[in-house]
Amino acid sequence: MATRIERDCLGEMEIPDDLYYGIQTTRVMGVSGVLGEKVIKYPYLHRALTQMKKAAALANAEIGALSPEIAQAIAWACDQVLTGKYDDQFPLDMFQGGGYTCVNMNINEVVGNLANEHLTGHKGQDKVHPNTHVNMGQSTNDVVTSAEHLCIYPALDLLAPELDKLADAFQGKADEFADVVKVGRTCLQDAVPLTLGQEFGGYAEFCRRQAANIRGLRDECFELIVGATAVGTGMGAAPGYQEAFYKHLSAQLGENVRSTKNLFDGMQNDDFCVKVSAAVKQAACGISKIAKDLRIMSSGPRAGFGEITLPSLSPGSSIMPGKINPILPELVSQVAQQTCGNDVVISMAFEQGELEISVWAPTLYKNLFESFDLLTKVIPLFIEKCINGIEANRERCRKEARETIALSTVVAATLGYPEGVKVSHYAQEHNLAVADAVLEMGIMTKEEADLLLDPALLVDPARMSEAIAKWKKQKGKL
Amino acid sequence: MATRIERDCLGEMEIPDDLYYGIQTTRVMGVSGVLGEKVIKYPYLHRALTQMKKAAALANAEIGALSPEIAQAIAWACDQVLTGKYDDQFPLDMFQGGGYTCVNMNINEVVGNLANEHLTGHKGQDKVHPNTHVNMGQSTNDVVTSAEHLCIYPALDLLAPELDKLADAFQGKADEFADVVKVGRTCLQDAVPLTLGQEFGGYAEFCRRQAANIRGLRDECFELIVGATAVGTGMGAAPGYQEAFYKHLSAQLGENVRSTKNLFDGMQNDDFCVKVSAAVKQAACGISKIAKDLRIMSSGPRAGFGEITLPSLSPGSSIMPGKINPILPELVSQVAQQTCGNDVVISMAFEQGELEISVWAPTLYKNLFESFDLLTKVIPLFIEKCINGIEANRERCRKEARETIALSTVVAATLGYPEGVKVSHYAQEHNLAVADAVLEMGIMTKEEADLLLDPALLVDPARMSEAIAKWKKQKGKL
Amino acid sequence: MATRIERDCLGEMEIPDDLYYGIQTTRVMGVSGVLGEKVIKYPYLHRALTQMKKAAALANAEIGALSPEIAQAIAWACDQVLTGKYDDQFPLDMFQGGGYTCVNMNINEVVGNLANEHLTGHKGQDKVHPNTHVNMGQSTNDVVTSAEHLCIYPALDLLAPELDKLADAFQGKADEFADVVKVGRTCLQDAVPLTLGQEFGGYAEFCRRQAANIRGLRDECFELIVGATAVGTGMGAAPGYQEAFYKHLSAQLGENVRSTKNLFDGMQNDDFCVKVSAAVKQAACGISKIAKDLRIMSSGPRAGFGEITLPSLSPGSSIMPGKINPILPELVSQVAQQTCGNDVVISMAFEQGELEISVWAPTLYKNLFESFDLLTKVIPLFIEKCINGIEANRERCRKEARETIALSTVVAATLGYPEGVKVSHYAQEHNLAVADAVLEMGIMTKEEADLLLDPALLVDPARMSEAIAKWKKQKGKL
Amino acid sequence: MATRIERDCLGEMEIPDDLYYGIQTTRVMGVSGVLGEKVIKYPYLHRALTQMKKAAALANAEIGALSPEIAQAIAWACDQVLTGKYDDQFPLDMFQGGGYTCVNMNINEVVGNLANEHLTGHKGQDKVHPNTHVNMGQSTNDVVTSAEHLCIYPALDLLAPELDKLADAFQGKADEFADVVKVGRTCLQDAVPLTLGQEFGGYAEFCRRQAANIRGLRDECFELIVGATAVGTGMGAAPGYQEAFYKHLSAQLGENVRSTKNLFDGMQNDDFCVKVSAAVKQAACGISKIAKDLRIMSSGPRAGFGEITLPSLSPGSSIMPGKINPILPELVSQVAQQTCGNDVVISMAFEQGELEISVWAPTLYKNLFESFDLLTKVIPLFIEKCINGIEANRERCRKEARETIALSTVVAATLGYPEGVKVSHYAQEHNLAVADAVLEMGIMTKEEADLLLDPALLVDPARMSEAIAKWKKQKGKL
Repeated sequence: MATRIERDCLGEMEIPDDLYYGIQTTRVMGVSGVLGEKVIKYPYLHRALTQMKKAAALANAEIGALSPEIAQAIAWACDQVLTGKYDDQFPLDMFQGGGYTCVNMNINEVVGNLANEHLTGHKGQDKVHPNTHVNMGQSTNDVVTSAEHLCIYPALDLLAPELDKLADAFQGKADEFADVVKVGRTCLQDAVPLTLGQEFGGYAEFCRRQAANIRGLRDECFELIVGATAVGTGMGAAPGYQEAFYKHLSAQLGENVRSTKNLFDGMQNDDFCVKVSAAVKQAACGISKIAKDLRIMSSGPRAGFGEITLPSLSPGSSIMPGKINPILPELVSQVAQQTCGNDVVISMAFEQGELEISVWAPTLYKNLFESFDLLTKVIPLFIEKCINGIEANRERCRKEARETIALSTVVAATLGYPEGVKVSHYAQEHNLAVADAVLEMGIMTKEEADLLLDPALLVDPARMSEAIAKWKKQKGKL
Repeated sequence: MATRIERDCLGEMEIPDDLYYGIQTTRVMGVSGVLGEKVIKYPYLHRALTQMKKAAALANAEIGALSPEIAQAIAWACDQVLTGKYDDQFPLDMFQGGGYTCVNMNINEVVGNLANEHLTGHKGQDKVHPNTHVNMGQSTNDVVTSAEHLCIYPALDLLAPELDKLADAFQGKADEFADVVKVGRTCLQDAVPLTLGQEFGGYAEFCRRQAANIRGLRDECFELIVGATAVGTGMGAAPGYQEAFYKHLSAQLGENVRSTKNLFDGMQNDDFCVKVSAAVKQAACGISKIAKDLRIMSSGPRAGFGEITLPSLSPGSSIMPGKINPILPELVSQVAQQTCGNDVVISMAFEQGELEISVWAPTLYKNLFESFDLLTKVIPLFIEKCINGIEANRERCRKEARETIALSTVVAATLGYPEGVKVSHYAQEHNLAVADAVLEMGIMTKEEADLLLDPALLVDPARMSEAIAKWKKQKGKL
Repeated sequence: MATRIERDCLGEMEIPDDLYYGIQTTRVMGVSGVLGEKVIKYPYLHRALTQMKKAAALANAEIGALSPEIAQAIAWACDQVLTGKYDDQFPLDMFQGGGYTCVNMNINEVVGNLANEHLTGHKGQDKVHPNTHVNMGQSTNDVVTSAEHLCIYPALDLLAPELDKLADAFQGKADEFADVVKVGRTCLQDAVPLTLGQEFGGYAEFCRRQAANIRGLRDECFELIVGATAVGTGMGAAPGYQEAFYKHLSAQLGENVRSTKNLFDGMQNDDFCVKVSAAVKQAACGISKIAKDLRIMSSGPRAGFGEITLPSLSPGSSIMPGKINPILPELVSQVAQQTCGNDVVISMAFEQGELEISVWAPTLYKNLFESFDLLTKVIPLFIEKCINGIEANRERCRKEARETIALSTVVAATLGYPEGVKVSHYAQEHNLAVADAVLEMGIMTKEEADLLLDPALLVDPARMSEAIAKWKKQKGKL
Repeated sequence: MATRIERDCLGEMEIPDDLYYGIQTTRVMGVSGVLGEKVIKYPYLHRALTQMKKAAALANAEIGALSPEIAQAIAWACDQVLTGKYDDQFPLDMFQGGGYTCVNMNINEVVGNLANEHLTGHKGQDKVHPNTHVNMGQSTNDVVTSAEHLCIYPALDLLAPELDKLADAFQGKADEFADVVKVGRTCLQDAVPLTLGQEFGGYAEFCRRQAANIRGLRDECFELIVGATAVGTGMGAAPGYQEAFYKHLSAQLGENVRSTKNLFDGMQNDDFCVKVSAAVKQAACGISKIAKDLRIMSSGPRAGFGEITLPSLSPGSSIMPGKINPILPELVSQVAQQTCGNDVVISMAFEQGELEISVWAPTLYKNLFESFDLLTKVIPLFIEKCINGIEANRERCRKEARETIALSTVVAATLGYPEGVKVSHYAQEHNLAVADAVLEMGIMTKEEADLLLDPALLVDPARMSEAIAKWKKQKGKL
């Protein structure tokens, strides 16, 4: 096997010549690997860094710091990497000490060797050096920190539409179930009625709000600290570099990429990751709450709430024939639990930043993108395999809505709370529906009860409040 | 002792007549009390609910649902409660099952008895009933959920200015330390120089951003779900109630209080608390990171970093005379750790919401307001007792900045990374400053070294990059 | 007001002479106070430290390091403090930077002034000095770290019996409900039957195991690091001090108090707090799981599971008459959520220990004892106000147990899974009980079905497996 | 491609005949896959379940419930699976709704098809049925819950020896550094001296204690709930099954595998996972604390603590030549942060168990085994690549130990705290070592100072306390 010699500040090493990565990547492979997942499992960081390497090369050429030939070769190499066909040249484990210096160097080496080969026909550092040229004007501290912002927007762009679709799926069911009157429940106790459609409409709106919340984070992804180099002072970057860089990167991405206000702050603090994680966690937890609602509403089929039926996806027991489990709602809740734990790790890591920079980029990356990935992937399954197939058990819903003792609220709202209490007691003791109790108690006529204690009226705010107000007037109460 | 009889749906009870709270509050006192802290420890919730009770009474009167006499008496009673002089009538523990139904009823009872007494000369439910009148058109589910939003803005309004002041304090020190050149550090290892002022300027900007982030949450506090009543349908609220309510509450507060878009969503989901908690946690963790920086920069006084000296606040040891501890930075970090744990509780509670409403309002309240309170209170101490008294140890900073091997970066940025490596090795092996190494190695003249390796140059981006670019040109490198 | 002058290493201060605490406590009062709760809210730490101060004085006298007169005065003063009558002399906030140096000094000052007054008739440091004498041979680092262990056993001793009582309460209900056959549920879906008594028996056993787990932590509370002084080397402690101290403290407490194996390890690491917190959290979370079971089993009363009825403790709605909430189960779950958050804080704090000692004793104390206190207080309420009053809705349980399709498992277990599937499909499609389906399908005779599909048989492992085996044999299957 | 038809309770499916897994596994593959990691990434669960399947088959044969031929075929198939050569037949994602019913069925299918093929020459359910035979007398609920216990001991058995080795590595350095006197630090402030060896000895002891703690969990791994079947009643298991099962499994593993006391409790509660997670987290966090100590002690090399030097593993900067980062200590801390987040997820999942069983087995598995795996893998790297290569900077340590003002503690311990304060002030003001200050102040003679303020004396408890006691006597103080 052909090899080549590479050097870094610790010495030299023989590298198999079919590899595009080099000595520094190889060193780190020997002292990491504990997670068993590669950084590139989530491709966002490598992509963002490579986009930045290209912009940096073009910027350095523009300001006269780098020869146009080398800059073009680097830009070409970056384009090659961005196709994904060299992804196997990024072998590093997602967990790393040293704050992803190694990831930056892995890219510098792959891009450098590609560019060197492009210009000379062989890999090596003779024409294009990974540190001197590919990393020109850069430090891991500014480029990785910047890439941690920049790599988030594609994840937002994947998640937000899923949240939209989830909202649409719930809205579809909200429309379908608009006339399914059922009993409401608070503290798991029977309350006044509402429609299944109203509940699902709430779910839809929650998802819409989360999509908006996620989209609201997009703009901050384009505030970078490029040019700050090692500690924020910009030592090692040539005059004019920052401006040129942002011009090139903005053109490349078609986005308004720009410098953050204070480079020292930007380097010291990863708080944007904390904020994004909180938003993902918040969306996941709310969807999990909905998933749990679906579990309890579909509990049974006979000895539970039994209000809805979820699609049957797989046998739910190895011993009990015919049992079906709500596996997708449960998968959704698993995802949410995981985002909560991941959010803790992210908060801890942020709090442990130190002086000029936090070294916990790998921790943030693993936990944030696991959360993103889980939520983004579970939503389409949830929609297609679960939500879209939900059916309402209309008869059972109707029956229970009529029987809830909470309908005594109509009496309380009209004749006062103490009167409502009497009705509720009477209904409970005699095991009656409220509509029957008020008749027996002589509080309403049959016509009044049919009108005022009809659950279908009581889920329609406008009609209901007018009907009750009218009856109240009749009863002469103010 | 005089007593009165009060009734609720579970029966009746003799209540000492000097108490304004009544039967329902008393019942709950017998079955709670585990936290040992009262809800009113943080006065925000009671205040918000009482403001809403007043607006509700006025609204109900306006739409003809409540007699003007009773409405006025209720409004008067709310004003009394808002003075704080009846705070001892709110005896309930902060932890409660049942989602603060009891807190709503405690206020209904106190306001009701005050109003009844106002109109009749005696407490009781004969003229003004806590449920029928004070709670008219309301359910705990809509008013407590709404109050949980509304009660947050005063906390934001207290925290944001403290963050401003903290930013100012850091900025003051940034200005004072603008010329204190010191060694930067990443991964706790010596890096290129920056000024202490630049570091503190980063701190100031972080605090400014957090203040803006906190203020950005204010508007959503005024989106309520009043009129949703028990499950979102508005059952029990009279026609026109919502509009009238928001008009009155907006006038009372001088804010644009308004209905959320979807009442079902608004009742189902407490996600705003999750978002606010994340923002408070984020600010606290970032300030803790700064506090830890201060600890490490002030470590010593002799055998540590010794770059700054913090004010001496109290003897730091019971056995070692003269030892002083960084107690305020440590207090700040404690606060941050607590906000992280509180945030976990809030996320868990949110995720466990259920069907029409979450029952975990007390959990959210305790944890969110403990976080608010801790952070809001620790900042002024941090400013006055610590930050304002920080002094820089200029001589030590200067000496270490000159000695850092990372100054070889100047060579790497000019002559290429491999050349920089040689210089760094030479300096390390011969235990030299880089400025001395480059002389011995013949890489720079004395004049060049004095100029280019002067830490004071290297913290000034504009001058530095020009000087280096000029030397690079001279050396004929591109 | 009479005052006295006290001195410490930062200067002197005029102290109101009615106070037993002095200059160092007063200094710290001016730079803390953010939590708004005193350390002595949970009295365990002060008690343990005071017990240790007494033992230290007697030990120092025994080895000739302290005059018997002063030692006796200190011992007397400690006894006074241990009565609790000087608790108002411990005014410090629970949150403190500096790792409770101030708490140690607060006790040194109070004990010192009491002892000085005892010997001289006046407070002051002239005869008994808080550092020189009360703190002799001690550092905050060894005594507070030790007290953090020692203060835990009284909390364990309070919690474990409550867990026993909880187990007894569940066992009482398990016995009462031994014959209440009901449908089991996994993934909230109907499964094969079991008895309510079997479920509650599981609850009882869980609580018994947790009590044992809690008691299992007791012994480690008596492993201290006394004599380690400031950093573990014992600098400042006289020869023979350790042995004498443990002898005196063991005698005082009637426990085998002893030194940990390695004083440096013992001072560096607070992992015992992490372990204890995990145990409290684990117990709380499991009890919360049970509380949630009670909520769901009591859901309804009409449109839920309705298997049990919980006692009515207070009206559950301000608008819906007659609604009752499961407030104690919810209070229990709140407590559990809080212990989870507190556990996070404790883990974070432990992980952030540093070199010779962790400074986060106050964080650990607040969170650990809040968890202890909450759980210890909520259990008796849970027992008396909820569990003891639970009633089974036998008829509903019986009916649902008969109707569960999971009874087809009997067929699957006998004739093979595919046969069981056919029965379950038939029962579902024709909306039949399995007992009726097998008749129609000709799989069992009426007699067989009455025997083999009787839920009461199916909850009795011995009888059931024999009956099924017998039938299986009859059917000629192996 | 050849196919076969398989059936389950939801219908039938054509399965490629080269696959050993079947219809139920295939169904689940279509509705999961969000984590992107397979259950078998951590092989423990599959191994434990397969061991149990074998024992179940042999037990069922022994009691006459299963034909010996089928039982032997199943046992043979299990042995095949246990070799690992069919690992590719376990394609399921680690995250699953439905509590790993699918994992149990995946194993039932693979074992069933292997056994069927073994007996008949073709795969299929005709001779050996996955549910009827392989899963005989079992439910996912009892076997997966049991396997979750059983699968933990191999992980403990891997972790504990690593903790031993870590203890040994630290002990080796403790011995090597036994005479390296250095300044101690509390609250990051200079304190009295100790040796580097004493610090490392503390680290060693911590690791030893954690190894013991981990081993202490082993026994509980063998308490299973086999025979409980679906809900704890044992419905579907034949008489004698439990006893026979435990006999066979104990023989197979050479361990005392046994039934837990109460099967209902055992099925309801996963608290053992919570306990194990806490133990792993505790160990990880303590090791992280040590890793951070190494970071701060090796900070510099020039402008930090500089007490030790860590091995150089890879270039620490892409821009600063010669900079080396403490990447292994950072990797260790990352691992610890992750275990904290994972522990939160586990606690949440446990708390959300429900009625007869928790459905969150997949959540527990992922988080617990990620924690195990990370910690077990990072320790050998930490030892070999970091700890073993640590070198002490003896000269710097010595110098700083002599200069610490905390040596005034010797004076305080002898002549009283106020005298110590004077010395500390004098040393600070005149920028002197304490040894020089006491000379100038006339408190000690040169000889006394040389003896009593020699840091090398002050780290040796026995010699030190005698020397100080002797001087104290001389000075006539009691």
